[in-house]
Amino acid sequence: MKKEILYCDVVDKKKSKIINKTRLYKHKGNFTWHRVKTEKYKTDSGDWAKIVRKVLIGNHNESTKFHLRYFEIAPGGYSSFEKHKHEHVVIGIRGKGKVLCNTKNYQLNFLDTLYIAPYTPHQLINPFHEPFGFLCIVNAKRDNPKILTKFK
Amino acid sequence: MKKEILYCDVVDKKKSKIINKTRLYKHKGNFTWHRVKTEKYKTDSGDWAKIVRKVLIGNHNESTKFHLRYFEIAPGGYSSFEKHKHEHVVIGIRGKGKVLCNTKNYQLNFLDTLYIAPYTPHQLINPFHEPFGFLCIVNAKRDNPKILTKFK
Repeated sequence: MKKEILYCDVVDKKKSKIINKTRLYKHKGNFTWHRVKTEKYKTDSGDWAKIVRKVLIGNHNESTKFHLRYFEIAPGGYSSFEKHKHEHVVIGIRGKGKVLCNTKNYQLNFLDTLYIAPYTPHQLINPFHEPFGFLCIVNAKRDNPKILTKFK
Repeated sequence: MKKEILYCDVVDKKKSKIINKTRLYKHKGNFTWHRVKTEKYKTDSGDWAKIVRKVLIGNHNESTKFHLRYFEIAPGGYSSFEKHKHEHVVIGIRGKGKVLCNTKNYQLNFLDTLYIAPYTPHQLINPFHEPFGFLCIVNAKRDNPKILTKFK
């Protein structure tokens, strides 16, 4: 008997696996989602502190040209100060935080949306007393960041 | 004198215009943003009602492989019932709504994130009494939707 293809699925015959399945990632409250795990911000330790990463779109063989991640920076935490060719789109959804972009500082509150252009040195910082959470959208294919040193 | 290139800008020499400028789209409250206009959902009238569109990322020569839009459906409104090759990522941020995806109905509440796979017939509906607002991310290069008729 032929295997029935489920609704909303597309089968990649070469790889014999189901890709691109329609899926709901339900918000469980407190900025956690069903079927989305919490990961370290980066695998290597380095010039960053107190951040976690949750990949909402990009880990399940989706064919989107973009990935959607949620990052949360605890009070006192910060991301790497870095630059790269690929852009960021950052949308504040929890608390508030600061974004250093070149020599300019932005404050990001709920739903403020920041487009960070290619090769812009940037860093996200939480100097406040509540968690700072934001969505971050990037191209699926992207270059590696170059870590920078401040004040050089 | 040579024209100075501003911070965060990249100049496209062929077209002699500035592209990819780092920009903050500040949330003004009530799901409106500075420098983001409110548009019609689609230019043609058709099988949809009571929706507006705000393009947050995609209208300013960004080189992202994706566009970010905010849609809002007033009570009683709905989007076209349609399908296309390109995927949607939909994130509820205001009120709640329903998403018909093939024959399945999803409810979308705050921060629920729905991945709609290629060629999935879908429609977003607001049967509730408050506005239903959601972010929708799509590939920048995408095919045109095919409008469908229900119950065929």
